[in-house]
Amino acid sequence: MDAFLLSNEELTNRLREVGERRYHDKHPYHIRMHDGKLSPEQLRAWVANRFYYQKNIPVKDALILSKLPSRDDRRKWIQRIIDHDGREGSEGGIEAWVRLGEACGIPRDEMLGEKHVLPAVRFAVDAYVNFCRLQPWPIAVASSLTELFAPTLVSKRIGVFLELYPWIKPEGLEYFRARLHQAPRDADHGLELVLRECKSRDDQEQAIAALSFKCDVLWALLDALSHAYPNKEVAT
Amino acid sequence: MDAFLLSNEELTNRLREVGERRYHDKHPYHIRMHDGKLSPEQLRAWVANRFYYQKNIPVKDALILSKLPSRDDRRKWIQRIIDHDGREGSEGGIEAWVRLGEACGIPRDEMLGEKHVLPAVRFAVDAYVNFCRLQPWPIAVASSLTELFAPTLVSKRIGVFLELYPWIKPEGLEYFRARLHQAPRDADHGLELVLRECKSRDDQEQAIAALSFKCDVLWALLDALSHAYPNKEVAT
Repeated sequence: MDAFLLSNEELTNRLREVGERRYHDKHPYHIRMHDGKLSPEQLRAWVANRFYYQKNIPVKDALILSKLPSRDDRRKWIQRIIDHDGREGSEGGIEAWVRLGEACGIPRDEMLGEKHVLPAVRFAVDAYVNFCRLQPWPIAVASSLTELFAPTLVSKRIGVFLELYPWIKPEGLEYFRARLHQAPRDADHGLELVLRECKSRDDQEQAIAALSFKCDVLWALLDALSHAYPNKEVAT
Repeated sequence: MDAFLLSNEELTNRLREVGERRYHDKHPYHIRMHDGKLSPEQLRAWVANRFYYQKNIPVKDALILSKLPSRDDRRKWIQRIIDHDGREGSEGGIEAWVRLGEACGIPRDEMLGEKHVLPAVRFAVDAYVNFCRLQPWPIAVASSLTELFAPTLVSKRIGVFLELYPWIKPEGLEYFRARLHQAPRDADHGLELVLRECKSRDDQEQAIAALSFKCDVLWALLDALSHAYPNKEVAT
């Protein structure tokens, strides 16, 4: 028994603290988005670049799936892939994101062709996929725990988009609506796995670091956007 | 355009020839199984060792899934994982294999504990999983094409088990029954992918070699069993 082992409550609190400090809702680009201050071009750039993250979610989830030793855990985890890829009669999150793009004025082929994806966004997302490919699976799972913080943010975002960006067609917001019930379920399962599998203080610290790394990925995406799509000062 | 490219029909024939020469139904241990000549100990050994192959099917399929670039292809491929891991209300192929074991007299915990799995079986199956992890995905898919040959063999096997091994409880044969409709669907999709993706003669030869490699994996499993569970000559 590791004398320095954190209790489940302590570890959960440490993970939540990572989000409080480093989740991407604190990034200036994101703050401006939720304040309704992004130009249409900046908002479209966010949607088009974030697509590269979205399309890689089932890839990293399949990598984690391939490492989960228990059939029960795989049966839960596979739902994430189905949520994003869709199944017969339900198109899934990637298609929903393409439709969000269309609602913002990004043609489908530009989105699918990754025409607007910045190199730094690609590097950050690829780093996330490779992290999930190469790390022990409980640590890879820990990196998914930004889902702990997502529902609050996403529910705000629906209101923000409806009220502050009325030029976005409201039917484009289905992706966010679906995440409201998917993300809490995913976060519960992810947290359960991390609490169950991280049985030394070292494991626990690695899990916390993994979540911090994932926050860096999301943050880097917004840094790249800030750099490529700076705010234009309106001359007065 | 590669002047030496095989037509779809030629490539399909070459793949089928691999099965005609090297599929495991030609192995002496398998021939004895289908002739009703295995002792209960030899048959149980086959079931218990083959379990290690069965349990790794969703692992190799998740690895392939993580590499499939198209959402449409992933939506088809994921069904393989669901077929083996099961979902709510349908227990899937791994559980069905455990029940086959029980019907043969192998206690569930001995099967799940991999108590009877021979080292050479582990090496062969792990080689298959690593092949799928490391090879380009169309080549990994090609290695799955033993499914082209499986339905004929499995439909024979159901009859063989019912008639020649009456000590096996017939309710244990559900795994084989399910494969009768799953394997042809999987083989169709796998072949479609290989024909679509292998666009040079070199790719095509690699696909053929991959299927040959996969036949070696199944063959090695039976070699290991032959060595560990030799036929006992009855003294007269």
